[in-house]
Parts: sequence; C-alpha cells; structure tokens
Amino acid sequence: MEITINLKTGDRTPLYEQIYEYIRDEIRNGRIASGERLPSTRSLCRHLDISRSTVELAYEQLLSEGYIESVPYKGYYAAKIEGLYQISSPQPAQQKKEEEEKKRYLYDFTPSGVDLKSFPYNTWRKLSREALADDRSELFRLGCPQGEYGLRNAISSYLHQARGVNCTPEQINVGAGNDYQMMMLCVILGGGHRVALENPTYRQAYRLFANMSYEVCTVAMDDRGMRVDGLEESGADIAFVMPSHHYPLGTVMPIRRRMELLGWADEKEGRYIIEDDYDSEFRYKGKPIPALQGYDGNGRVIYIGTFSKSIAPAIRMSYLVLPPKLLERYRERCGFISSTVSKVDQMILQKFIEDGYYERHLNKTRALYRSRHDTLLAALKDLKSDVSISGENAGVHLLLHFHDGRSEEELIRLAAEKGVKVYGLSGYRIDETSGETPGENCSDSQEAVILLGYANMNEEKIILAVRLLAEAWDAKS
Amino acid sequence: MEITINLKTGDRTPLYEQIYEYIRDEIRNGRIASGERLPSTRSLCRHLDISRSTVELAYEQLLSEGYIESVPYKGYYAAKIEGLYQISSPQPAQQKKEEEEKKRYLYDFTPSGVDLKSFPYNTWRKLSREALADDRSELFRLGCPQGEYGLRNAISSYLHQARGVNCTPEQINVGAGNDYQMMMLCVILGGGHRVALENPTYRQAYRLFANMSYEVCTVAMDDRGMRVDGLEESGADIAFVMPSHHYPLGTVMPIRRRMELLGWADEKEGRYIIEDDYDSEFRYKGKPIPALQGYDGNGRVIYIGTFSKSIAPAIRMSYLVLPPKLLERYRERCGFISSTVSKVDQMILQKFIEDGYYERHLNKTRALYRSRHDTLLAALKDLKSDVSISGENAGVHLLLHFHDGRSEEELIRLAAEKGVKVYGLSGYRIDETSGETPGENCSDSQEAVILLGYANMNEEKIILAVRLLAEAWDAKS
Repeated sequence: MEITINLKTGDRTPLYEQIYEYIRDEIRNGRIASGERLPSTRSLCRHLDISRSTVELAYEQLLSEGYIESVPYKGYYAAKIEGLYQISSPQPAQQKKEEEEKKRYLYDFTPSGVDLKSFPYNTWRKLSREALADDRSELFRLGCPQGEYGLRNAISSYLHQARGVNCTPEQINVGAGNDYQMMMLCVILGGGHRVALENPTYRQAYRLFANMSYEVCTVAMDDRGMRVDGLEESGADIAFVMPSHHYPLGTVMPIRRRMELLGWADEKEGRYIIEDDYDSEFRYKGKPIPALQGYDGNGRVIYIGTFSKSIAPAIRMSYLVLPPKLLERYRERCGFISSTVSKVDQMILQKFIEDGYYERHLNKTRALYRSRHDTLLAALKDLKSDVSISGENAGVHLLLHFHDGRSEEELIRLAAEKGVKVYGLSGYRIDETSGETPGENCSDSQEAVILLGYANMNEEKIILAVRLLAEAWDAKS
Repeated sequence: MEITINLKTGDRTPLYEQIYEYIRDEIRNGRIASGERLPSTRSLCRHLDISRSTVELAYEQLLSEGYIESVPYKGYYAAKIEGLYQISSPQPAQQKKEEEEKKRYLYDFTPSGVDLKSFPYNTWRKLSREALADDRSELFRLGCPQGEYGLRNAISSYLHQARGVNCTPEQINVGAGNDYQMMMLCVILGGGHRVALENPTYRQAYRLFANMSYEVCTVAMDDRGMRVDGLEESGADIAFVMPSHHYPLGTVMPIRRRMELLGWADEKEGRYIIEDDYDSEFRYKGKPIPALQGYDGNGRVIYIGTFSKSIAPAIRMSYLVLPPKLLERYRERCGFISSTVSKVDQMILQKFIEDGYYERHLNKTRALYRSRHDTLLAALKDLKSDVSISGENAGVHLLLHFHDGRSEEELIRLAAEKGVKVYGLSGYRIDETSGETPGENCSDSQEAVILLGYANMNEEKIILAVRLLAEAWDAKS
C-alpha cells in the first residue's frame, strides 16, 4: 500500500499534521480499510521526500488517538473502528433566540427588584483594585471549601450584631447564592426527608426541594406565620420558614409562635427548621426583628442569608449557618466540595463589611426604600377602589387586598392595559396536586391580592404609576 | 402595674429602645409574668416623663416581636411564651483552630498543582478594571441562569476549535466549579441512576455521586481505558470517564474504545457518558486528543470542562455541555436556579478568551510545563532504583512504577524523611466495600506506583528534589 499526500510546504499547517489528517480521514471514510497495513515510516518518508521524524510524529498522533495500531516487528495497521459513520452527523447550530422579547411596560412593580443605582460602584472598584493590587498567587489558589475564614468572621460578627444570630465563623458556609446553598444543604441532610413550606412561599425553594428528590408539602399560615399544628400533622421533619419577614405576605412571626416552632423541632431527634432571612435588613419602623436562630438553644435552626438583596443579586454570595451537629455532617459529606465563590470576591466582600461600607450602604438603601415605601403608601390613599393594605413597613413590596370581587387576572390585565406591570399573590401559592387538602390561608380566598414592589422605582415614577393604576382600577369600580 | 426604667438620656441607645429592651428582658426572665397587663402608653409616658410616641414605638417593637399582645379596648398584656428559658444558653465560641498545621516539606510533588506565578495578573487586572469601569447596573443584576450568552459563545468557539467539541452556546452551562456542575447534573438527571467510574479515578467525583444518593461502582481499566464489557456487566446507566487523559493514570482512550463506549450508550435509552476533560490543554507531543463528545452523533455525551487547571483554581468557573435531550431537562428542572458565577467574572473571562489572552496563556503555560516535564524525565534517569515511567507527555504529573517489592507507604515515608512529599497511586483507587469484586487493573497490584506532579516546581527545584529522592530510594535498593 502506498499513500500519496499532496503536502503543502508553504502551508501554515505543519507537515506532520497534514499527514495525520490525511490518513485519519482516509480511515474515517473507509478508503483505508480496517486491518489494512500502512506503509512503514521509513518507506513513507522516502515516498513523500520528507524527514522520517515528521512521519513518526504523524503516526504517533494516529496511534494515540487509536486510528492505527502498532504490531511489534510487523508495522502499523488501520484499527477496527465501529460506528465511525456517526461522525458525519454534525448537529445544526440552533438559531433559536434565547431571550424572549419582553412585553413593554412603562412601569414594573416587581417585588423582587433591587435598586442598583445605589450600588457602591466606587467602593467596589476600589476594593477590587486593592484585592488585585499585588501579584498574589495566594488569591488564585483554591481556598477553604467553607469560604475564607476572614470573610466568615466578618459575617458572623455582622449576624451577631444585626440579627442576634448566635454563631462562630466555623459554623458558616459561604456559597454562590441561595439556590446553591439549598442544594448543598440537601446533600448535608441526605435523602428521605419531608420538607414543609409555608403557603404562599418562595416557589423557588419549593421547586428546588422537589427536584432534589425530597417530599415537599405546604402548611397553612395564620397571621402569626406557619401553623405548628399543621406542621405536626404534615409529617414533615424539616420546616422551611421566613419568620422575620415572610415572603410574600410580610408576616412577622411573634415570639410565642417561634417558641412553639422550636418546641416542635425539639420534640423529635432529626427535626430541623430552615430559617430563610432574606431581607430583614429592610425595616422602616422599630428595630429589626431578631432572627429565630438566636432563640435556638438546641441546634435545630439552619440559618440562611444572602447579599443578593442587600448589595446586588449578581455578586452571588450567600451564607448558611449550620448547627453543630450538621456542621459535622457537612464536614463528612461535603467537606471536599470546593467553594463556589472566587477568593477575589470574598476578599472584596470581607473588606466591604469590615471597613464599615456595608453598614453605610445598608443605611443608605434603607432610607431610599423607606422614602419609596412612604411615597407609595401616600399615593395609594388616592385609590378609590375598595382596598386594604398589608405587608407595609418592611421589605421592598406591599400587598393590596381588593374586596370588590374582581379577580387577580382582571386587575393585572387592567393595569397592563395602562402599561403598568403588577403581580398577583396567587403566583406564590403552591397548588398541591398530590391529594393533599389545599392549605387554608389567612387571607380570604375570595379576595384578590396584588403585590407592589417599589425597590426599582423612584418617587416620581411611583406617583405616576399609581395614577395609572387608579385610572385602570377605579374607572370600573 | 408600674414600670420604672432607669432611662439614660445621654446614652447612644435611643430611649424607645431602652424601654423596649427593659420590658423585653423583664418578660424573658419572668419578672413580668405572662398574661400580666402592662401600663398604657399614656400612663407610662407620664410616669417616665417622656413623649408618648417614644413609648408607642417601644410597644410596637414588643408587639411585632410578640413579647406583648394588644387586646382592643383593654390594653397590652405580656404574651404567654413557652420555652423562653432556652435563650440563656449561648453557645461558647469554638476556639478550635480551623487550619491544621501542615507538615513542613522542602519539596511537594503534588499532582494537583497549578503554576500561579504565570497567572496573567496584569491582564486580569486590566480586564477587571474595564469590566467595572462604568456604573453599569446591568452588571449587578441577576443574569442568565446558564451564564451570559457572550461567554458561552466564546467557550463554544474555543471548544470547537481546540477540542473538537460539537455544540452551540445554548448547550453550555457555566457554573462555579466542577463539584457544583456535578451536583447540578445530578438534579438534571434525577434520582435512581447507577454511575460507573474508572478505577483508579478522581475520588471527588465518586464521593459526590455517592453523596447525591446515586449508586456508584467502579469498572476495571486496561491500557485503553474503561473496559466496556465491565461497564456492561456493572449494570450502570451512566459512565464517568476521562478519555483524553485519564486521571491519574494518563491513559488516552483510543478511537476504537471510544466507539465501543458510544455504542454502549446507544444500546439503551437513557444511558449517558460523562466526559471529564479536565486538563487536555496540556499535551507535549503531537496534537491534542479530540474530545469524545465530538464523535457522539446521538446526544449521549455530557462534556465537562474547567478553567481551574488552565487558568487558576480560585477563579471558580467550569462548564457543562449538555446534549439536546438533557438541555430540555435542564430547563425544566434547573432553569430557575440562578447562575453561581458573578457577571463581572464572566465578563472578564469572556474578554480573556475573545481577545486571544487565553490562547497565549495556554501556550505559555504549556511551554512552561513541558520544560518542567522534560527536566523531570531527564533527572529521573539518574535514579538507580528499578523503576519505569508512565503517563508522561501530557498533563502535569507522571507515574513511577517500582518493581523492587517495596511498598508505596515505604517509598512515601523514605521521601518524606528527606523532606520531599510524593503521592501514592492507591490514594486514587476506590475500595468498594460493597460485596463487589475489586476491579482488576492494568497495573500489577504487586508494584508500587508513585505520582510526581511538576506544575508547582521550577526546573531547579525539580533537579534538587529528584536528587533527594535518589538519596531516599536508591540507598536501600
């Protein structure tokens, strides 16, 4: 067998690669049959009038990819390859546009907004520059799986002072967002649990638990939060709650209910409460409500907090506070899992907290949100519809309850016609298709409830948007 | 009932807070009994000679935390709180030092090292500065869960050109490290799978699958990689392999075995191959071995790659390439899970790839590692022990096989006595305690195999360290 290759010496592709590609393609398309003997390197280099080492290099590549095989004292043979025809079916590039075009609204009262105009760009730039200032290889080496100790220390001090959380830096796990932390938590807790969530709730948590193969159920709320009798009946061993400021209802769980909840957890070994303390930084009346974790004397509360609301969603940092028993379990089951946050980001955040920037930023945004909150409340007084308000004085949204029999869909549609996007409470309710009885709820199922978030809108816009809402809603009432 | 509080007007704590704290503590320690009626705000403000609104603020805080209850037309009452005594058991701060002191070694041949002296600090700083240059709120808003399209596009072009991977940006999921990607993958695949891994393997992957409640097993390797007959027998429906450069053995899976493996996956619906292509950038002889994914015509291969080895471990970015069917499943089950990588980091990396920095960086590190590789190979020639070498010409470590009957432990100990840290192959083997037959392996179980990684050591150090190894090992042989 002889191989003639039209080698291009002036080509950018090295000679050996041209030989390699030629023979590979010949084997792929079957022109060199499997089992066929190839010319020796000596004869091929003579034939092509090139150096032997060039041919050897090409053969080595073919060997290492398995297109040819070497038989000692005999030579090289085309390998037997089944299924090679599959190679010729490249997948056509999906031209499908990824981002669906969003409907145009003049104003959007999204309850999950964050004001990013007040993001501390200058400070962040400065801290980022400082972090990267020297050629510190330490910064790019793999760090502690739980997050850098310095950052955990800063978080633990903050949590103690601001939230009454009782923990050491050792108990803290820093990770890239709440979703990730919940996934990690499921690995720590292991399989076979039944998780009870409030209804309505943060749907993402519900879906995540379900997709992590947990049994999930919801428990009815009253005006004090999750009902502990319902929790008991649910058969759950894990309760996911937002005691300091329920999302989306804004309910604050009073101390007695908290104690009952802790009592539930203490009753049986292995019961845990997950406390999602997602936006307790924003409270416009009185002091912040301390975290449930601070009342927990028996290591039953898993605390989860985030900087997504208080700094920015895209910095991707949140934290778990694990009770001692679960900390052990974390070390066993997840201790080897690398941190999901870059050291540079951790360093920036640590400085941001330690040097007082975080507190100042919180004060600034709190004042900003309070002013928007007050503006919205004042503007809503002019609504002529039969509405009442709840969930005010904290967070970045409030709820409008309509008592005139109109449905959520209708109210949302009327607002949309005026170019204003509002959100219905039903979007936060879990419909349990599993034969469970639907959770009875503190709000009358007859009434329509609309959520108005104000984090993303300045005062002027709020006033204009509410005027449009009045036009939309009051005209028909 | 009358309450006398020693108010400090010059104090930094606001008056209302002093009142709140006093009454709260009185209720907590039982001096105000549950059910007891509190003074009215009117009488308390007169009694304390302060404004009524101050008292009202304190009562509101107590109300919102549930320490007191308001009964219409009657007044305020201390709430009934069970289990409050638990509050007085704060957990003592764990003084336990987190980082255990590492034994001091002169030289460390870690196989998982990365040279960080060559990290492109200037470029990274420049790109980071540029990313943060303007006050772009877009940069801190939550991005696409799969990662920004621009970055995915850059990765997909790179993968096509450098690795022969056949994919669109839509198929790529960017996430914070391989561990996270594997967790995500388990959520996509759902429960009830049996995963087969090579033996030896990357232990972290084995542990992760096990902790995600998967059945895991290992399949024996021969000199072509995972044996497909063994895989068939294992009953697994998912195979985790490193075909282009097995870790730690360095085996390259030839094309025939690859086709057999793809054939195995095609045989039954729902079978998948996870291809971990962790360090294929580093090959010092011939062209890079193309990825298995490029041969896959039926959407059976899940490709996973990382920038941990090729840029730096702490930047925390890796990527999954999902076959179309799993992409659908991803959207259903995980589409709501927020990205784990900050947009700033994604932007830096995108620029780093698009502007050609990545390619230059790879060329630079490849040359660096090749030189260390050659130096190590040359130095090892002077060893007088009866050893042979494998796994050279690629990656950042090679394997020394000892044929003189000495055990791994002994060889490691002898090296440690001279201040050199080396690693044994047995650390990568999975001992299956489940009644399975231990995987037969291509390397003789009698021989001891030592791994020498050279990424972290310059040429001079390599020469000195090998001299010490010769002293350690040759003296007794």
